[in-house]
Amino acid sequence: MDDGITAWLARFDTALHDDDPRAVAALFEPAGFWRDLLSFTWNIATLEGRDAIADMLAACLAATRPWGWRQDGPAEATEDGLAAWIAFETDAASCKGRVTIRDGLCHVLLTAMDELKGHEEPKGARRPMGLEHKSVRDRETWSEARARTTARLGAEDQPEVLIIGGGQGGVALAARLKHLDVPTLIVEKNPRIGDSWRDRYRSLVLHDPVWYDHLPYLPFPETWPVFCPKDKIGDWLEAYALIFELDAWTSSTCEAARWDPDAGRWIASVRHEGKDVTVSPRQLVFCTGAYGPPREPDFPGQDAFEGTILHSSRYHGGAEFKGKRALVIGAGSSAHDVAADLWEAGAEVTMLQRRPSIVVRSETLMRHGFDRYSQEAVERGLTTETADLLAASTPFAMFCEKQKRVYETIRAEDAHFYARLGAAGFAFDFGEDGSGLMSRALRTASGYYIDVGASSLIADGEIAIVAGEEIDRLTPAGARFRSGREVEVDVIIACTGYQSMHETVAGIVDRETADRVGPCWGLGSGIPGDPGPWLGELRNMWKPTAQEGLWFHGGNLALSRFYSKFVALQLKARCEGLPTPVHASRSTGSAAMSPEG
Amino acid sequence: MDDGITAWLARFDTALHDDDPRAVAALFEPAGFWRDLLSFTWNIATLEGRDAIADMLAACLAATRPWGWRQDGPAEATEDGLAAWIAFETDAASCKGRVTIRDGLCHVLLTAMDELKGHEEPKGARRPMGLEHKSVRDRETWSEARARTTARLGAEDQPEVLIIGGGQGGVALAARLKHLDVPTLIVEKNPRIGDSWRDRYRSLVLHDPVWYDHLPYLPFPETWPVFCPKDKIGDWLEAYALIFELDAWTSSTCEAARWDPDAGRWIASVRHEGKDVTVSPRQLVFCTGAYGPPREPDFPGQDAFEGTILHSSRYHGGAEFKGKRALVIGAGSSAHDVAADLWEAGAEVTMLQRRPSIVVRSETLMRHGFDRYSQEAVERGLTTETADLLAASTPFAMFCEKQKRVYETIRAEDAHFYARLGAAGFAFDFGEDGSGLMSRALRTASGYYIDVGASSLIADGEIAIVAGEEIDRLTPAGARFRSGREVEVDVIIACTGYQSMHETVAGIVDRETADRVGPCWGLGSGIPGDPGPWLGELRNMWKPTAQEGLWFHGGNLALSRFYSKFVALQLKARCEGLPTPVHASRSTGSAAMSPEG
Repeated sequence: MDDGITAWLARFDTALHDDDPRAVAALFEPAGFWRDLLSFTWNIATLEGRDAIADMLAACLAATRPWGWRQDGPAEATEDGLAAWIAFETDAASCKGRVTIRDGLCHVLLTAMDELKGHEEPKGARRPMGLEHKSVRDRETWSEARARTTARLGAEDQPEVLIIGGGQGGVALAARLKHLDVPTLIVEKNPRIGDSWRDRYRSLVLHDPVWYDHLPYLPFPETWPVFCPKDKIGDWLEAYALIFELDAWTSSTCEAARWDPDAGRWIASVRHEGKDVTVSPRQLVFCTGAYGPPREPDFPGQDAFEGTILHSSRYHGGAEFKGKRALVIGAGSSAHDVAADLWEAGAEVTMLQRRPSIVVRSETLMRHGFDRYSQEAVERGLTTETADLLAASTPFAMFCEKQKRVYETIRAEDAHFYARLGAAGFAFDFGEDGSGLMSRALRTASGYYIDVGASSLIADGEIAIVAGEEIDRLTPAGARFRSGREVEVDVIIACTGYQSMHETVAGIVDRETADRVGPCWGLGSGIPGDPGPWLGELRNMWKPTAQEGLWFHGGNLALSRFYSKFVALQLKARCEGLPTPVHASRSTGSAAMSPEG
Repeated sequence: MDDGITAWLARFDTALHDDDPRAVAALFEPAGFWRDLLSFTWNIATLEGRDAIADMLAACLAATRPWGWRQDGPAEATEDGLAAWIAFETDAASCKGRVTIRDGLCHVLLTAMDELKGHEEPKGARRPMGLEHKSVRDRETWSEARARTTARLGAEDQPEVLIIGGGQGGVALAARLKHLDVPTLIVEKNPRIGDSWRDRYRSLVLHDPVWYDHLPYLPFPETWPVFCPKDKIGDWLEAYALIFELDAWTSSTCEAARWDPDAGRWIASVRHEGKDVTVSPRQLVFCTGAYGPPREPDFPGQDAFEGTILHSSRYHGGAEFKGKRALVIGAGSSAHDVAADLWEAGAEVTMLQRRPSIVVRSETLMRHGFDRYSQEAVERGLTTETADLLAASTPFAMFCEKQKRVYETIRAEDAHFYARLGAAGFAFDFGEDGSGLMSRALRTASGYYIDVGASSLIADGEIAIVAGEEIDRLTPAGARFRSGREVEVDVIIACTGYQSMHETVAGIVDRETADRVGPCWGLGSGIPGDPGPWLGELRNMWKPTAQEGLWFHGGNLALSRFYSKFVALQLKARCEGLPTPVHASRSTGSAAMSPEG
């Protein structure tokens, strides 16, 4: 069975060696995929079809010089063809990947940089000794060295990388960079690392299960809860920063940043310990969450409303709303969580649903969506690292197609659940093309809910639903909808979502730069909120943007874990002055490095 | 090959089932060993020889009711015979073990309790969910429940267990108890968990390598240094306490404790946040280090000495002694570390060696003493848990015998090193019976050094040695030795070691209880500092003592990791009111439960 893979790899190696992009592309199916994470493109790109593959190779092959292609483990028969893990080398890096072939042609190829040669992570046999086994006069101890570098960082010594935001994205990236010996400073607005979780509404727990949530280097213990409560994840992030000796300025904000093209550095103004400090990193990474600033409510008549109105980001708990009438605007994750939290606190809750949502029961999603990240997977011996590469080896276009079948199963299994939800007036769908919740998360990062309890309250009529309406205006006593219907409420929680991350850039750098960089997230699927053309990758995430030295990193814990590696490799390569010729095309999902920006 | 084990286990099972202690004992070699960790004896005991085995079974078999003996993995040929992992059940627990047979008879049997039935740890598939997937009015969140229990602990709610000391022993035990749902409070005198490490001399690093140092539930990352610097281990302990939600009162001291036999509880007076609080736990665990209070210097003429004199426990670094003449009294680990630290700081150092020390080069010891705890072991797939059980399966008597051969090898390999050390006047040996450093650590916990640099300074004459002397008296300008020789020094660091842990009991409980409990540590080897008779186990450590509800837990990180499990199982069983009939005999190394105490 392995012969098919070995033979294909040999032909592939020969064609690459012959410097013949067309011949290489001909080894793929006409509509075959090649997903590359840095190893050829110094970008995150999915090449779809032979032309895109040949174009990429014509641009990248000479600088990459790949060799030593080998199968790494037994081949497996999968629904997509015969698949196997592979390994190979380039001039710059040792790399891993996965190949799937059908009828002798490649259906999907993943190539992913693993370690930069000469800059490998100090792990296992490479770990530091911690001391020299000899005595030297005036030796500096580990702690003294650490205290010195910390004191100098951002003052006498400028960081290579400034990370704005010390949530899971910021700390995971900083830990990667620490291990790669890249001087890095986190600026975190809250007093303690982890407060970005602690400060959210009281009942919040992670909606993703523990097996999906591990951060790099330090997996959660075997006794960690499946769905981690918010304060506990806050404490974990704080402990993580302590353990990995991350340099973080807390209670500090990056007020402004300007790129100095002559110096090749940012001039960033940071409010730190009551002073304005200028920090000049070469790289500036926005780790401010997968979202930008809140979409604040701004309804006609809002000033006249006599009750309380707040955006979900400022909702901390329902205690003060006991016995009150509450209107929750929106029907995504926050709206469901807030509605349930208000109900638990004893409020009378109405949810205003403007558009259909995708709702999946948590247990069902665990079964169908997280089979690679589960107790069963652990017991099968599947490591998180392998599960991540397996997930990465499915291009987004394929993923969305495959999800359609999953959602057919889910709809059938949970038919009773959906019938009850529909009977209560709740509007649900499974995405414009039936590809479900995770596809929508990738496309718009909004309009879905993994049910951990709120849907039952809706089905039971405990949370009232107003669907297909929009706010016309607020009144002193409540809200009037477009249909003319009015509700009287004491409190309105606007779960109206967030703007794109690039709006945070507009606030800190400037409008022009933000617009040139463009929005983050989304695949170019053509649905509302994710305009085409199709990109094949998430916009602007984890890869070069149209602004030199400006990066976005974020997402849930799993994305922060996986992509922090690739952001760190890109930053390390630049820190070391290695050549990093970026292949930019439509397929990379970014306008990086193209003259027009 | 496995047949030998299976056949022996079948005979063993039958003899146990027949309730025939003599027949069971006859399945052992006449001088065979049975080491039991709780499963039969509710004690930590090594039975040496058939009589001891038969006596133990006569006392314990009826209450234990073992069954289901099975081999767990392939048998291996070892230098001690054919060996295999085993598993079995008792009424109370599921258990593990290891059996080694020679010529059809058991040479060594290890039996170790693994989990109490009905009280298994919540790990893997048993981990908590973190939330209930339904909404309930006034639901208490994880954080709220944690805040409530923390606020009540030691006030409205009394802890089951009070741990004095928040070092590695205290936090490892508290983490075990947390997972077993036993309400536990740590009292730590320092402001932060980890300060017991941070406050020591600046150049301190762990002398044991990382693979040996993992704590339960959360192994060090793959990138952790081999020899962890003191502040870094302090931060790790602090993060560990945060991650596992340990309840610790810092800057707090247990001033006094009195056992109330009627209530079956301690009445402990704790100084906490400026107030005296009475805490009444059922169990009191001393985790105050492997040692008791310092052996403070008390030399004739000490008051007249015009320089500085301090015990090593109060030595933080040599900066203030630059250019000064220093006398280090002692030649154990602290003395070597302090002498090297003083030398690094620029002092002129003389070491007064009163007795020969055992010195082994760190690299050599890693190779010969830590093969089960090494990068190679990790790569062979040997887990820490298995390595621990393997170590536990060698009774101390056998261990000391086996070490003699190791030290013959070490002496030969490092002959040049020892020749240089001897030429510099340093007195070394390999233990009274040639069994080396780790044996001495078990017997007296003093008089040895793992060389990480100081020995080279001694060999090179950079640290001067005065050997075989004792202080006669201090003079205003220095010290006079018994031989009449005098030295002039500005500073004296007394690395004179520590008293036994039971002296801490004398300070907190009372002299009578401390004396009744007796000293801790030591095997009864008959050497100075470890008087006979032979016990086969460490005195009073990790098992019932002569005082109900009083326990000792401590040692290095490895011992804290491994034995915390057995202390926690004993405390959990008592918390749940399970029968825990303790088998006390000479072989248990404790006087526990015997009427005379």
